[in-house]
Amino acid sequence: MSRSITRTTDGRGIRILDQRELPRREHWVEVRDAATAAQAIREMWTRGAPLLSMVGAYGLAMALAKKPSDASLTAAHALLDATRPTAVNLRWALDEIDRVVRPLPPAERAAAAFARADAIVEEDVGLCRSIGEHGLTLFRALHAKHPDRPLNILTHCNAGSLATAAYGTATAPMYLAHEAGIPLHIWVDETRPRNQGALTAFELARAGVPHSFVTDNAGGHLMQRGQVDAVIVGTDRVTANGDVCNKIGTYLKALAAHDNGVPFYVALPYTTFDAGTATGADVEIEERHGDEVALVGGTRITESPCVNPAFDVTPARLVTAYVTDRGVLTELSSIAR
Amino acid sequence: MSRSITRTTDGRGIRILDQRELPRREHWVEVRDAATAAQAIREMWTRGAPLLSMVGAYGLAMALAKKPSDASLTAAHALLDATRPTAVNLRWALDEIDRVVRPLPPAERAAAAFARADAIVEEDVGLCRSIGEHGLTLFRALHAKHPDRPLNILTHCNAGSLATAAYGTATAPMYLAHEAGIPLHIWVDETRPRNQGALTAFELARAGVPHSFVTDNAGGHLMQRGQVDAVIVGTDRVTANGDVCNKIGTYLKALAAHDNGVPFYVALPYTTFDAGTATGADVEIEERHGDEVALVGGTRITESPCVNPAFDVTPARLVTAYVTDRGVLTELSSIAR
Repeated sequence: MSRSITRTTDGRGIRILDQRELPRREHWVEVRDAATAAQAIREMWTRGAPLLSMVGAYGLAMALAKKPSDASLTAAHALLDATRPTAVNLRWALDEIDRVVRPLPPAERAAAAFARADAIVEEDVGLCRSIGEHGLTLFRALHAKHPDRPLNILTHCNAGSLATAAYGTATAPMYLAHEAGIPLHIWVDETRPRNQGALTAFELARAGVPHSFVTDNAGGHLMQRGQVDAVIVGTDRVTANGDVCNKIGTYLKALAAHDNGVPFYVALPYTTFDAGTATGADVEIEERHGDEVALVGGTRITESPCVNPAFDVTPARLVTAYVTDRGVLTELSSIAR
Repeated sequence: MSRSITRTTDGRGIRILDQRELPRREHWVEVRDAATAAQAIREMWTRGAPLLSMVGAYGLAMALAKKPSDASLTAAHALLDATRPTAVNLRWALDEIDRVVRPLPPAERAAAAFARADAIVEEDVGLCRSIGEHGLTLFRALHAKHPDRPLNILTHCNAGSLATAAYGTATAPMYLAHEAGIPLHIWVDETRPRNQGALTAFELARAGVPHSFVTDNAGGHLMQRGQVDAVIVGTDRVTANGDVCNKIGTYLKALAAHDNGVPFYVALPYTTFDAGTATGADVEIEERHGDEVALVGGTRITESPCVNPAFDVTPARLVTAYVTDRGVLTELSSIAR
């Protein structure tokens, strides 16, 4: 699998895709300071809970390379943490870098931060690969029920290669199943307002995985007509009780899956489980600018005021199982870090 | 209420809005023959189950004005009927004109057809006004539960003034409640892929009704957070068992309403009740071109194949009540025509 984040050749910055230009253009950008890393996260050049945690971690390392003081560490942590309020991974990665470097003499901090950020990337690749292997077992069993036709999987948003360092979370089982020769067809939700489904379609096309792009409205109908064997999504945060915070609209697909007896899976690495937050009702839901809704492809589709909540909470009762790096689980307390 | 369809000053054609240009431009077009009427329906210059039935009825009248033979009547009926397969109103209106004119001498057919089409328009205005009055009673009762704040209503698609001759179906109670001084706030679903929500927002803004435009993904979250007091939608067809065929995505909102104890209302005139079709599973769901999904505001958002079902079926069990011209009903057999 190709990597979505790499160090620059001089090692002092990172290379990431400016995903705002996908699928029209594959534009890689170099990020060389914390302010640019914060901008890249806030303006969604980069996105996906795992990947933005890596950009945050490297952002902190870059701040320390410039100025390794305690004050610099605190300020850069605050700057990066303020970019996106909902994802737990970003906060985790920033805290992790802080934990590793704060006891060190300032001169050693930048190198240690870069090393820890590198390790977070490598860990993500391994975690996603493990999610993929456990999900592959599930997909194999689902396919065995209807061996005469492709396995139809629906996904919402992009919890893909483009949201992580390599395999993605929700997509990892798709890539591994495709490699294993299981015939697959993926229903890709558009995911308004930011159309991250176009990113999922882009990466599935790149990997040769058959798929169709549909509006967010279509999934319920497809399930009613028996055209979906399972739903699998990623998540920005799973709370202690198993509630799933993910891209706005996920809850509607979980309801439809439940109503039609379609299994609903949530793929996550252990780092996305937030045992410290009791339920989804306790998660702050980011409200983004209404222009993300009103402006479509540069055209203003309405002059009316727009409201733009970015995430919703799928109650644990609607989740069939969590596909994690530790296995397919119906309860997550064992993976709390 | 201003009219969405009128005869041209010479009486031989009709004036309708080219809704594809809304909300950017209010462009009225004249339609003067059956082929153009069929094109206007097929290409969705005009839309909304009631309104397109009127365009179809006048289209048949225009065909008879040109050539009043039995063969001409049959051919024009077939041409117009083939434009959109899901809406029951169009077929009803075409059959109604046929029924009225076929026994007449050819020379009298065009005038009789125009007269019957005019009557269908006037009947629609009256039916929608009645729906509005019955819905107003509902809205008044809902508002009385929380008199300290505006009544929050969510709607999907455009079952509005722009979809009918004047008041709309789902919007009629909104207009009457607004006139009656009940403080209202309408959540308007975007309604991908064709963004008919922009039409609803346009007509609500024109009437001064407070509203916010949201993505189709947002409604479940808004309901979870207590921000929706009721959902009301129109419908293209309600089958004998009460299943509701409406714009794709309606089913997802009905599921969310059910899950959150929010009442889910379907507004319809008796003409939209199809007692001759047993259940929603028996309704042909129109599949439209994938480019409606892929091309947003002229920009191609994906190169991947797109699938575009235009309607879905909301099971009767998810409907709190039907708001009809005959009253607020939980069962429709009494209004079968």
